[in-house]
Amino acid sequence: MQVAVKAKVDEAAVCCPNANCLPYNVGNAVSFRAKPLFSSHLAGSTGDTEALGAWGYQDSYFVLNVKSDGSKYAMMKGARYSISGKPLTGLVNFVEEELDVVIDPNGHTFPACDELRNIPESNLGSEGEAELAALLGDEDSRISVEPVERARHGTGHTQEDMYDLRTGLIRFRLPDAVVWPRDEGEIEALVSLAIHKTWCLIPFGGGTNVTHSTHCPKKAIDPRPMISVDMKLMNRVLWVNEEDGLAHVEAGITGAELIQSMEKLGFTIGHEPDSYEFSTLGGWIATKASGMKQNKYGNIEDIVKEVNVVGAKGLMSHKHKMEKTSVGRSSIGIDLKSLMLGSEGCFGVITSAVIKIWPLAESRSYESVLLPNFDAGLRYVKDLSKMRAMKPASVRLLDNDQFRLGQALKESPSGLQLLRNLVSKKVGCYMGNISEKYIVCATITFEGTSDEVKIQKKLVRELASVHGGILAGSQVGKAGYDLTFAIAYLRDFALNFNILGESFETFAPWSKLTQVVEATKKRIHSEHKSRALPGVPFVCCRITQLYDDGVCIYFYFCMQMSGVAEPSDVFSMIERSARQEILDNGGSLSHHHGLGKLRSSFVPQIYSQGYMDSVVAVKEALDPNNTFGARNGIFQ
Amino acid sequence: MQVAVKAKVDEAAVCCPNANCLPYNVGNAVSFRAKPLFSSHLAGSTGDTEALGAWGYQDSYFVLNVKSDGSKYAMMKGARYSISGKPLTGLVNFVEEELDVVIDPNGHTFPACDELRNIPESNLGSEGEAELAALLGDEDSRISVEPVERARHGTGHTQEDMYDLRTGLIRFRLPDAVVWPRDEGEIEALVSLAIHKTWCLIPFGGGTNVTHSTHCPKKAIDPRPMISVDMKLMNRVLWVNEEDGLAHVEAGITGAELIQSMEKLGFTIGHEPDSYEFSTLGGWIATKASGMKQNKYGNIEDIVKEVNVVGAKGLMSHKHKMEKTSVGRSSIGIDLKSLMLGSEGCFGVITSAVIKIWPLAESRSYESVLLPNFDAGLRYVKDLSKMRAMKPASVRLLDNDQFRLGQALKESPSGLQLLRNLVSKKVGCYMGNISEKYIVCATITFEGTSDEVKIQKKLVRELASVHGGILAGSQVGKAGYDLTFAIAYLRDFALNFNILGESFETFAPWSKLTQVVEATKKRIHSEHKSRALPGVPFVCCRITQLYDDGVCIYFYFCMQMSGVAEPSDVFSMIERSARQEILDNGGSLSHHHGLGKLRSSFVPQIYSQGYMDSVVAVKEALDPNNTFGARNGIFQ
Repeated sequence: MQVAVKAKVDEAAVCCPNANCLPYNVGNAVSFRAKPLFSSHLAGSTGDTEALGAWGYQDSYFVLNVKSDGSKYAMMKGARYSISGKPLTGLVNFVEEELDVVIDPNGHTFPACDELRNIPESNLGSEGEAELAALLGDEDSRISVEPVERARHGTGHTQEDMYDLRTGLIRFRLPDAVVWPRDEGEIEALVSLAIHKTWCLIPFGGGTNVTHSTHCPKKAIDPRPMISVDMKLMNRVLWVNEEDGLAHVEAGITGAELIQSMEKLGFTIGHEPDSYEFSTLGGWIATKASGMKQNKYGNIEDIVKEVNVVGAKGLMSHKHKMEKTSVGRSSIGIDLKSLMLGSEGCFGVITSAVIKIWPLAESRSYESVLLPNFDAGLRYVKDLSKMRAMKPASVRLLDNDQFRLGQALKESPSGLQLLRNLVSKKVGCYMGNISEKYIVCATITFEGTSDEVKIQKKLVRELASVHGGILAGSQVGKAGYDLTFAIAYLRDFALNFNILGESFETFAPWSKLTQVVEATKKRIHSEHKSRALPGVPFVCCRITQLYDDGVCIYFYFCMQMSGVAEPSDVFSMIERSARQEILDNGGSLSHHHGLGKLRSSFVPQIYSQGYMDSVVAVKEALDPNNTFGARNGIFQ
Repeated sequence: MQVAVKAKVDEAAVCCPNANCLPYNVGNAVSFRAKPLFSSHLAGSTGDTEALGAWGYQDSYFVLNVKSDGSKYAMMKGARYSISGKPLTGLVNFVEEELDVVIDPNGHTFPACDELRNIPESNLGSEGEAELAALLGDEDSRISVEPVERARHGTGHTQEDMYDLRTGLIRFRLPDAVVWPRDEGEIEALVSLAIHKTWCLIPFGGGTNVTHSTHCPKKAIDPRPMISVDMKLMNRVLWVNEEDGLAHVEAGITGAELIQSMEKLGFTIGHEPDSYEFSTLGGWIATKASGMKQNKYGNIEDIVKEVNVVGAKGLMSHKHKMEKTSVGRSSIGIDLKSLMLGSEGCFGVITSAVIKIWPLAESRSYESVLLPNFDAGLRYVKDLSKMRAMKPASVRLLDNDQFRLGQALKESPSGLQLLRNLVSKKVGCYMGNISEKYIVCATITFEGTSDEVKIQKKLVRELASVHGGILAGSQVGKAGYDLTFAIAYLRDFALNFNILGESFETFAPWSKLTQVVEATKKRIHSEHKSRALPGVPFVCCRITQLYDDGVCIYFYFCMQMSGVAEPSDVFSMIERSARQEILDNGGSLSHHHGLGKLRSSFVPQIYSQGYMDSVVAVKEALDPNNTFGARNGIFQ
């Protein structure tokens, strides 16, 4: 079944999903301009602002254009990404074919929200506001009860969040106020005040969560005033110890700021989650984040050496911090740092951390390998995983659908055509069974000394040939890595045409990997079918992190929801079914996104009663008044 | 000042420190034979038994012999170690010279304990004993209230422990009973019973701790009956998943048993703490252990994927365990596994763990490098640390004193003479400033694929030449690694001659490393001098683990204490001073031994009040009746 979707189009700036862009802001009752998310404390701050109700920077978004001959092409606005400003002639066709829909440039079916509705007054009260003002007391306003701020701070980046912000009808409870503390002392004072006033504090980093972790608990569950503690002003690098390879950094710093400030000194943290432009150090710790280069640099638990947290019992910290180094690997009793990793704001406000820094890699390069099918791809990356510590910094395996999506995001003439030439040329020589329908692609990033990179490249290439792979070169490899950041903007573009999309991830052991991928895809298709939804669902995945015992699988899926009642809820239900399928087949509840409120109801399936009771007991012990009552994870 | 020390000597079996050997057992009122520490559950179990009141196996210990010409030599009995059964002609001279003492073969000044004294009756009572018997209820006795068992289970391997066991006068409170549970179900029942009866449970693994962690709290602090829970019968490998490289293993398995059972399947865990012959998986987790090959295989936190713990709130576990795999790297809320690492028995009984296993290395070899002095050695190992993930599995740097001690433990003609030849031959060519007085040695173990080992060897050798090093070959390298296990027996030998010894360790960041080593050595000398103790203290160290941000330093020190009142206490005070010096200079409270009760009083120096309060709150929450009341770490 093909479904016609209407979209208003003109060559100038159309179908822009960013709420700050035309046409959404024209005549709006409420300005959607969020408080600038980059402060000026750090030299080099760009003053860039983030969009509200859409992923990413305000200046970057996809638009649909129509040529004089009636053909449609997409384009990413702005100049931040490698594909920005280039006509993407394959994208619209790809979407139409894969989802079995027609993108109609003359219609625009998704609501163009022009105001936030249904936002109740702040529950904080003028007395509370005055007390906060006295605490933070200064000229520039660091307290807000504005609906726009509250909307931004009470949401993250789930499909549901974006849907609500785009419709302007927010169905979640929002915080009553937002504060921007400037140092650890202010946070200590804030926590004391909150305990005294029986307020609830919800720490806020980059707001990139996809778990509802920044949603406020329903009033029926917790009627207290909720205050979002935005950490963005705490973005200073407190010290750097080059000899020990350590830095002490405030928790509100974004990945972009941190990377920039370290690069100036000749260092890197090596931590690049897809969200690093916006997500923060404190958020990474609270969520137990993972970066794309974890093969080399480790995950956040390997990067963070110590954490300062202001909890209900005061500041939890190591005392020697002022000496500008760390206790390193130590066996010194109960490890509260590890307890904070994955705590999702429930134990306190993470104020700073001592992190590991690496000298900038001497050499960086890319490679890509085409393989006949997903199974061959899995065998290939499994062999790469056996390189253990010598694995390339990033190895990602795109399944056939995701690979073709990536090709559709290339400037015309499409990358796919170039690849066709490449494959057909090489296939003739040594491979008879390769087909565009099954082909998959591994994109590889190398970082290290020249010697390391050389050795790794050699192995990567040798193994490719073992598994029937064709080297597709560094350009495809680099494009694959970079595309991660641009691809995140696609969902908002698709929503213009009533296409809802979401990503979700899991860890799967090698022994369950094929099973998890196949069952999850199948389940989404069957859920879609059983509801008689329009079109065909598009589900694709990539393997993003390799471990000795398994991998992270990152799924994208989207569906055309025109004419479907409560589309966001229906979509959510299908996502939940997919998660259940993952669990049933041996995948984990989350590799790096965390639980938040979105996945907390699955917890009894994965932990024993004694485990859950113990976690609740720890929470009650550390935070007896539930001051940090975001109710993420098990605490809902 | 030279001090004459007397020791009884004969060629047959003399000065044997092992309480189970002649002459100690002759006519003993109490047999020192401990319950066999290896059970027969695992095929290949050797039935070897551990000594009591001395390190290691009963058949392995040093003796002093006198030749017909009156010259003295040492020998290690048994056949377990590379030096066993060989005349060590240099050792006695080395000790005499370094400590400025004379070892007199005609005297034996240290008490030859022939009974345990001062051991009060078990406080458990016959009713309690009967209830335990009903719980474990079977033919073979798995409950004991015998003084010998209680003495073994209430001690570890500190200098104080060994001193007390050797004198037979135990000054610590011992457990009232020892039980040997056989499975997780029994432990759950035991914990329930203990809560009901208000008993205190103290988990016991290999009993190799050097922190007083298995000492019972004084009666004035806690009058409850104390029950030691010996895990040795829980030593089964529950499953192995070769594809994911995982095994689920009961916590009472010793390193030796685990290594043996994995090797049969073609795997290794790669975890080799100095104590691995006796220490257990559960003990490693509780202590947050580190192994000698951590460069390659990681520390226990990298090896353990999941932990089953029976706490006061029941069994804490992941539910999917029966599917024979693990959740892998995941972000699924509060991580109780990490909380158990370093918990030192205070949260429950660790019953099993899912651990990572590696295919046996394709290639293993050794190298050693002589360097002109300690500073050059540090620069060398720092450069090796920059190999990061490609570092050899083990790199250890012996300072001059420890290197010479190692040479004194070689069969005559001494290894030192061979090295003299080597050095003098090479020095002539390119190095003018090398001297036996300052020379240090790096011993290196390689494990990996043939390619990895080849690359690593090349780098190790290139860097050696950069730092003025001389390659001393694989034999010295292997001997250095193996010596670790034999050297542990030296302390008991020395005690025969009233020489008290101890080892202790710390993590020091690179930026504080030289400072920590120098200040610690200096402090021991000054403490020794200020007390006008006999002879000269011997203090040496080695660097044992390399990290990006620093190293583990492992110190040995010993002193002749003839004629000193309360020698064990005096020695302890000096050790405490050394620890304070370490902290004052930027070292950590412990790299891998843990806190136990020995180091708990230092804790307020390293954590904020909020940190300590939080830890205590977590303890009270997880174990409200303090059923696991060993009072290790912060809880004393």
